[in-house]
Amino acid sequence: MKDVVIGFLGCGNVGGGVWKLLEDFQKELAHRDNLRIRVKKVLVRDVNKSRTCAVPRELLTTDVSEIINDPEISIVVEFMGGEQPATEYMIRALRAGKTVVTANKVAVALNWHRLQAAAQETNVGLYYEASVCGAIPIIDTLNHSLQANRIHYLMGIINGTTNYILSRMYDKGEDYNAVLEDAKRLGLAEPNPASDVEGFDAAYKLSIMSSLAFHARIPFSKVYVEGITHVTAMDIACGKEMGYVLKLLAIAKRDGDSIEVRVHPTFIPTEHPLAQVNGSFNAVYLHGHACQEMMLQGRGAGDMPTASAVVGDIIHASIADVHVHPTFANKADADATLAFEDNWRSRYFVRISAVDKPGVLAKVAGWFAQENVSIATMMQKGSVEDGRVPLIFITHEAPEKAMQAALAAFDPAICTVDSMIRVEK
Amino acid sequence: MKDVVIGFLGCGNVGGGVWKLLEDFQKELAHRDNLRIRVKKVLVRDVNKSRTCAVPRELLTTDVSEIINDPEISIVVEFMGGEQPATEYMIRALRAGKTVVTANKVAVALNWHRLQAAAQETNVGLYYEASVCGAIPIIDTLNHSLQANRIHYLMGIINGTTNYILSRMYDKGEDYNAVLEDAKRLGLAEPNPASDVEGFDAAYKLSIMSSLAFHARIPFSKVYVEGITHVTAMDIACGKEMGYVLKLLAIAKRDGDSIEVRVHPTFIPTEHPLAQVNGSFNAVYLHGHACQEMMLQGRGAGDMPTASAVVGDIIHASIADVHVHPTFANKADADATLAFEDNWRSRYFVRISAVDKPGVLAKVAGWFAQENVSIATMMQKGSVEDGRVPLIFITHEAPEKAMQAALAAFDPAICTVDSMIRVEK
Repeated sequence: MKDVVIGFLGCGNVGGGVWKLLEDFQKELAHRDNLRIRVKKVLVRDVNKSRTCAVPRELLTTDVSEIINDPEISIVVEFMGGEQPATEYMIRALRAGKTVVTANKVAVALNWHRLQAAAQETNVGLYYEASVCGAIPIIDTLNHSLQANRIHYLMGIINGTTNYILSRMYDKGEDYNAVLEDAKRLGLAEPNPASDVEGFDAAYKLSIMSSLAFHARIPFSKVYVEGITHVTAMDIACGKEMGYVLKLLAIAKRDGDSIEVRVHPTFIPTEHPLAQVNGSFNAVYLHGHACQEMMLQGRGAGDMPTASAVVGDIIHASIADVHVHPTFANKADADATLAFEDNWRSRYFVRISAVDKPGVLAKVAGWFAQENVSIATMMQKGSVEDGRVPLIFITHEAPEKAMQAALAAFDPAICTVDSMIRVEK
Repeated sequence: MKDVVIGFLGCGNVGGGVWKLLEDFQKELAHRDNLRIRVKKVLVRDVNKSRTCAVPRELLTTDVSEIINDPEISIVVEFMGGEQPATEYMIRALRAGKTVVTANKVAVALNWHRLQAAAQETNVGLYYEASVCGAIPIIDTLNHSLQANRIHYLMGIINGTTNYILSRMYDKGEDYNAVLEDAKRLGLAEPNPASDVEGFDAAYKLSIMSSLAFHARIPFSKVYVEGITHVTAMDIACGKEMGYVLKLLAIAKRDGDSIEVRVHPTFIPTEHPLAQVNGSFNAVYLHGHACQEMMLQGRGAGDMPTASAVVGDIIHASIADVHVHPTFANKADADATLAFEDNWRSRYFVRISAVDKPGVLAKVAGWFAQENVSIATMMQKGSVEDGRVPLIFITHEAPEKAMQAALAAFDPAICTVDSMIRVEK
């Protein structure tokens, strides 16, 4: 029997889930893995605060040194969230020769190079499966099973809150604000949902996933981010009628040394595998030169699914004697040989309100044509209101900048652009 | 730079794929993983046979000892297929202190205990990701990411040939034999497709997956196997009308010490995640107590997807200094404390031809009722032919044996049972 003593940094919902899972799983751990895992100390901000998790009061401490300087503790598990002080505490733990398991996407995305350097200094492990998509084993799959692949692209629904909101808007035609309020009430959106609905949560995760997929550091700052706050029930209904579902997609593509990484609302055809991923589910769809298409789907958030990933890493770290680190030069900035493409190619859904007069369509088509954007589908939706009629266009593939230039040329006296949403196959 | 010298046992399609992938990936292997992997010898039956793979003739040998006794070779990769002589060769290689990577489901399913014992004797690795579902990382996911779970069940579409056949029958209403012949012509079915269409291929894979999922040896001999050879276009059309898709599912469920493992054609609702998995794609859907629902989907066969898994394992084995083995007592037979349930509960689709007279439905309903099988839906399909009318029943959940007993009681003078297909949620 191998005894492993661990310390927690933080003890919120996920920490409570991990505590519960470790408690509840003692017999299996002993039987299956010959392991006895004991939590010795838990860092909290306030020892006296009442908390839902069942950690005994005597384990709590407000002094991080009690964990970092405890020679018995070999694994430090972090669920504080946020960049600081989590990053500094983890670096101190790694330098003290302790393996770190973290669920913290912000700290990993922003300070991965510092964390990894500290881990390599002392030959300890740095595990972060739980930092991306909860229980879905995307980190381990990229690090191990897909090592022999050139990943061409990955596309993911990697934020549960926005997928829940968009799924309900699609199914029931509801408005964004109404569903958001309901999601808050149901605990599916944070009281301050900005990081989710503005796309930053997905962008942190995309930075981590794409770095592993492309074996090159893809900094968070290089990710184009656009959230779902401006999405309307009208757009979703129009897309639905034309055979598309709206998802907040995190997209990473690599073509030689050219890389694009972007998070934005995206229409995908209803028959796309990601179109079936609804509610709070997450999924990552990818294509590698050897594995071809693959999709991993599951619970991307929630206490127990996240705890599943954390404890999976704790068990692996407890058994492993050698810890393997990601196979790329993990620096603060992107490799200088990489070109980050902001003029990506996509198809576009454009909704406008145009004055209801002969010749207007010819004008609009002309503005598209000036930038060589060609139109695949046009549809009038609804009827004239205030002398204006709503028109929907879906374009063929075009460069982003050409599209932006075309829309900038639209004359507001003739038509206004109500929405522009990218469309992927 | 770490030099790794490997030997191949066999060099068919997958071997050719692995050769190609290793050749083509040399630069990445050096850059990403600091590895130089060289194939030194390749065992074949006939050195003079012309072969499609690009292995240079001077590497070929017909003498397995040349590989097993070569002290320079540290990893032996096996793609001979079939139980023997593959199993004996792998055991000899393991005993000689060489790590083994295999794509051979039959050898692993039938002789896993012997292979693992040999690997543990000499502290080497035994890797078999490619033996189940090609590129899909189900073995690694069960062994690592999901370690902290009690898996309640897994359901998989794990045979590409049968999924291709059933998908085409569903989409186009074609007959089994016509599609099978076409699949052979397209290289999607073997000239002798028995192992696929009779369900044995799926049963070998299910034996391996369920053993890892349940941390208990689930021998191949315990898997109930029923293939798709008796499936008709009529059944699929009726199911489609009622909102179901037919798939050859491999199902493993655990409830305490009671286990059921079965492979058979199964109707699932069109909204089930597995219902969207079409053509030659594979997928495994599972439920764990912490991770909750998860699905892994991808290419389950094909030279390059299988090579993706093999080379992923070769790279991992090349880096790892300690090889972790599955966490259960891997014996020839099942643990005596396990009860293999053959009286599982399911819902049932039953198609009969009944004489077209008043009172017949009451009789049929009576035979079901005698065994406490209750009917959820009844539908007449098509019109009277030879004085008989086709009737479809879908039952509520009932024990398998009650269902079998009910059908055995049907009086052929009144109705004949044309099909009985299990239905899962």
